[in-house]
Amino acid sequence: MRHVASRVALIFLALGQYAAARTADEPSPAESNVPGASTPGIHSNLSVTFTLKAPDARTVQVAGGDGLGTGPFSMTKNAGGVWSVTTPPAVPGFHYYWFVLDGVPVNDPSSESYFGYGKETSAVEVPEPGAEYYAIADVPHGEVRAKWYLSKATGEWRRALVYTPPGYDANPRIRYPVLILQHGAGEDETGWTRQGKAQFILDNLIASGKALPMILVMDRGYADRAGMPAAKFGADAPAKDIQLTFGAFEDVIIHDLIPTIDASYRTIPDREHRAMAGLSMGGMETLFITLRHLDTFAYIGSMSGPIVPDLNSKQPLGTQQGPFDAKTAYEGAFSNPAAFNGRVKLLWLGVGTAEPELFRSGIGGAAQALKAAGVRLVYFESNGTAHEWQTWRRDLNDFAPRLFR
Amino acid sequence: MRHVASRVALIFLALGQYAAARTADEPSPAESNVPGASTPGIHSNLSVTFTLKAPDARTVQVAGGDGLGTGPFSMTKNAGGVWSVTTPPAVPGFHYYWFVLDGVPVNDPSSESYFGYGKETSAVEVPEPGAEYYAIADVPHGEVRAKWYLSKATGEWRRALVYTPPGYDANPRIRYPVLILQHGAGEDETGWTRQGKAQFILDNLIASGKALPMILVMDRGYADRAGMPAAKFGADAPAKDIQLTFGAFEDVIIHDLIPTIDASYRTIPDREHRAMAGLSMGGMETLFITLRHLDTFAYIGSMSGPIVPDLNSKQPLGTQQGPFDAKTAYEGAFSNPAAFNGRVKLLWLGVGTAEPELFRSGIGGAAQALKAAGVRLVYFESNGTAHEWQTWRRDLNDFAPRLFR
Repeated sequence: MRHVASRVALIFLALGQYAAARTADEPSPAESNVPGASTPGIHSNLSVTFTLKAPDARTVQVAGGDGLGTGPFSMTKNAGGVWSVTTPPAVPGFHYYWFVLDGVPVNDPSSESYFGYGKETSAVEVPEPGAEYYAIADVPHGEVRAKWYLSKATGEWRRALVYTPPGYDANPRIRYPVLILQHGAGEDETGWTRQGKAQFILDNLIASGKALPMILVMDRGYADRAGMPAAKFGADAPAKDIQLTFGAFEDVIIHDLIPTIDASYRTIPDREHRAMAGLSMGGMETLFITLRHLDTFAYIGSMSGPIVPDLNSKQPLGTQQGPFDAKTAYEGAFSNPAAFNGRVKLLWLGVGTAEPELFRSGIGGAAQALKAAGVRLVYFESNGTAHEWQTWRRDLNDFAPRLFR
Repeated sequence: MRHVASRVALIFLALGQYAAARTADEPSPAESNVPGASTPGIHSNLSVTFTLKAPDARTVQVAGGDGLGTGPFSMTKNAGGVWSVTTPPAVPGFHYYWFVLDGVPVNDPSSESYFGYGKETSAVEVPEPGAEYYAIADVPHGEVRAKWYLSKATGEWRRALVYTPPGYDANPRIRYPVLILQHGAGEDETGWTRQGKAQFILDNLIASGKALPMILVMDRGYADRAGMPAAKFGADAPAKDIQLTFGAFEDVIIHDLIPTIDASYRTIPDREHRAMAGLSMGGMETLFITLRHLDTFAYIGSMSGPIVPDLNSKQPLGTQQGPFDAKTAYEGAFSNPAAFNGRVKLLWLGVGTAEPELFRSGIGGAAQALKAAGVRLVYFESNGTAHEWQTWRRDLNDFAPRLFR
């Protein structure tokens, strides 16, 4: 964890410089605001001011946003009918939030909206002083392409977002490895580029030589078999229902998406040049799919993905995180550690230290049990961040450089 | 106008079939809803039901959406605290709307949001029965690519969205003509693909052989010179301020965007293979920029773009639509009709018949005056549609097939 500790030191150093350059009374518009909107505004100590004009409202609160502190925060109305509140200093990163206006959750007209919680949601980007790895920089940039394809598994037109690295068009003879990268529950295929800034993380890693040029593929992590009712995903569903929930998506990935990508882009279409990773639900999907298809994937990453030791259990998914038996978990995928280590180039598990205990103990416990059993893996903790995008940006920044070496 | 009349007949025929297949009591979720949301719901007669759960609210209305009829529509609350209203039959197309909740405009959590009015805005897609030209179909699809570039004119990183036609990657020796296509005021570079479905219109036109394969470039139609305060755009600004408002964007297009596109994509980088068009403000920008740069553009389209006969007038922009003097308008660009006709391959002006009188008389009057002066142009009316996206979808469907012939 040495690089995390030194990063934290750097952050505080930069934070001091940042604070010195501004006065506490001059909040800066958040980068996530619509153009011209002055709030949400970020103060030098990373507290955040929110406002909403609602002269006739009776109560307005700010809610959501794990990194904002222990809300909801009650707003107060001024003589002009504008409600406002300034939160305590926030954790740096990207925080979903919404107003509660006379009891109704509504978005902030001053914020861009992002797909989260199964709907459009406001969010505030609180800068992490000194963290440049996800900023757009004066380096060569890849493209993010919307690719439509017809899925046989679901019978629907689907849209994948595909990052092609800098130089892709200019070097038509070069072929590239592929990382399939999945969002979390309630989000969609736009999450990794809009909330996560995956394209800038990759641009920066590639420019500095820390990561190899690669293609990222971000698909919508939901699938219902053609003609079947929509599958439900929830912490209260029995673990065995994961087969229903993720089974159709498994077919999409294996039989529709990968062949489409390999036919449409200059990939290196073998397991040694194909990775899959995802956050939260996307991490669960990654473990579910990759461990069944080691002929297709050699690199595996689960970011804050709840561990499901027994895929056939009737216990609710949300409580089914232990004990982890390396012999039987995931249908026996780890039962022969030497064989697993020989076949899988990278197994990567990560969690934020401010995530709920269930995530930390589940993921940390699985990592420990797997290591004890002799399975080679990387376990990464994001210091001080919650079940939020700042954790997953750091995860990608750690994970991507380890791929395809 | 023969093809418009026959299209209207087809619409009524299809509408009858559509109505017969459904009962009035079964609204279909709008395509613009977030996944799983049942409202807004479209009835067989194209009336629209909206709902919002707000047990403690005192008043809730639906507002916005020219094509929805003469709102705002007051909603009524049921015993479960859910407010609802069903509007009269709507005009087919894409209609922005919002709720007014105890006096505050808020988005509908059941709707995707779209950038309009300078912020994220809900919208409802009311299908036009029989109109398949903007539907995703089982034809080869192009890609829509996000392209980041550094603008010297503004000193900022900008994002253009670039449609590359089907087969672009598979045919690395083919070069393509380019259409720069601009959104309207309050919208952004996402408008033409999210609201307008330009990519599917082009896919369908190309698949049927009606349009030649081309690259579309959609940029953000705002620009402020590096270090200068933000320019204002409004109907009450003097026409001469258009030079300030559009001047920086002119520099972006001519000196930053076009060189970037020509360097990054397989274009045919000459005036005979470059078009510009736009809707509303984007149409104004198109006429302002192209008529000053006929060495750069040979194809010009203005869709519902207010006409500004005298760019140097102190009259407010919004009232400055006539009289149109073909000799002096647009700095004399049309003063020699024979020379103009010899140089410009296509001048295309369009308006919806349900647009405000100012648009209809301004655009129709300019078209008449130009024709009378001997300027060759195409004048297109969209039957029954307002200053809305259905007009501009039809415009693109008429305009694109005429390009690069």
